[in-house]
Amino acid sequence: MAELPTCETFVFLDLEATGLPNAHPEIAEISLFAIHRFSLEHPERDESGTLQLPRVLDKLTLCMCPEQNFTPKASEITGLSNQNLADNHKAGFNGAVIRALREFLKRQKSPICLVAHNGFDYDFPLLRTELQRLGADLPGGTVCLDTLPALRGLDKVHHHSTRASHGKKSYSLGNLYRRYFDDEPQAAHSAEGDVYALVMVFLHRAQELLQCVQTEAQNWDEIQPMYTPRKRRLSGGSLDA
Amino acid sequence: MAELPTCETFVFLDLEATGLPNAHPEIAEISLFAIHRFSLEHPERDESGTLQLPRVLDKLTLCMCPEQNFTPKASEITGLSNQNLADNHKAGFNGAVIRALREFLKRQKSPICLVAHNGFDYDFPLLRTELQRLGADLPGGTVCLDTLPALRGLDKVHHHSTRASHGKKSYSLGNLYRRYFDDEPQAAHSAEGDVYALVMVFLHRAQELLQCVQTEAQNWDEIQPMYTPRKRRLSGGSLDA
Repeated sequence: MAELPTCETFVFLDLEATGLPNAHPEIAEISLFAIHRFSLEHPERDESGTLQLPRVLDKLTLCMCPEQNFTPKASEITGLSNQNLADNHKAGFNGAVIRALREFLKRQKSPICLVAHNGFDYDFPLLRTELQRLGADLPGGTVCLDTLPALRGLDKVHHHSTRASHGKKSYSLGNLYRRYFDDEPQAAHSAEGDVYALVMVFLHRAQELLQCVQTEAQNWDEIQPMYTPRKRRLSGGSLDA
Repeated sequence: MAELPTCETFVFLDLEATGLPNAHPEIAEISLFAIHRFSLEHPERDESGTLQLPRVLDKLTLCMCPEQNFTPKASEITGLSNQNLADNHKAGFNGAVIRALREFLKRQKSPICLVAHNGFDYDFPLLRTELQRLGADLPGGTVCLDTLPALRGLDKVHHHSTRASHGKKSYSLGNLYRRYFDDEPQAAHSAEGDVYALVMVFLHRAQELLQCVQTEAQNWDEIQPMYTPRKRRLSGGSLDA
């Protein structure tokens, strides 16, 4: 892969959807926290030394009503359902979502690195599918990083160099958070709750993770869609409105 | 005033800015939580009966670097400064903010009621000023409600009807939150922290507040700007981009 430019803004991302990949899911909630690398290189701590979410942070969270039904499991763990999304008159993943997303990303100093946990296998391909369904895409030059293989890789290097045994550790986002902060993650499986946990996990190892972006990130253009979507009529206005 | 239509979505709003009205402040942070009236009419509670933030909720929080300096007091209470906003490469209140705001609001079922605490004297006129600076406006038909006079009015009616003495109570957002929830508000004077407290205060008296929208809300068009802004060159692209 060609050398990546130094990313200026890291946009942490999580999706909640109607089910797992084999169910050809649709996105029901997206949350993004945009943080400039300055705040990742200079993590903020309170008086007791506890890591804090950066004060300067942009956030976008949107819920949307999918056309297909949630699997019972997905509905149970996310707290979202076709019923509560319809009760709240949420529209689907339409042109307005894409435009809001695009304007939100345009606010951020580029180049942008999207960050998601298990992103290469879930969030990035699914987002690609939903964008493709509407004939849309992300800004050119966007790259993306999956913290799951990145953190596994860092521990492996550490293991080899120290020869200490780390045993079989879970790299689920919840377990990483518990391990790093000795605390229970809040609001797990709301998109925003998971992005919060992801940012905190990243901050805990920010120096190492920022260093491995060059080798571990992929160009957004290389991300394959999770599945080939059927094209949908663009509701909520044209993309250029 | 002509009769207001029934509002479908309530967009709770808070601004952090460089100072008080007489300093002709600029916005440095905006946060909006969009909640459909269904979730206000059917508040969610946990097993112990404690009010919860609605599960289906859209959120937008943006920081921006103002051209003028923060007053020391504003910087102290908000945690924002010209320095930390510049360190994080935040742009100003520009066309991209307005477009992000517009697309966020377009996602919501209309008519929309903006809700802010002390909104008539601070948030609404200041937002009007910043929009006017760029020659922009909110969607037609938007109305706005200030929970400060609305809650004072509700207590006054209650006082007259019960003849009980309530004494001189503070109606600051922090004190309302403490009174209703017997707890300290979190992240006060971050825009998002204050919107969270505002939504919880609203939910605590949602039935009464929803009823008084008809008499207490104003049309957005009637809101006067806090001060007449000098026009600014539109950065971040045209409003129609």
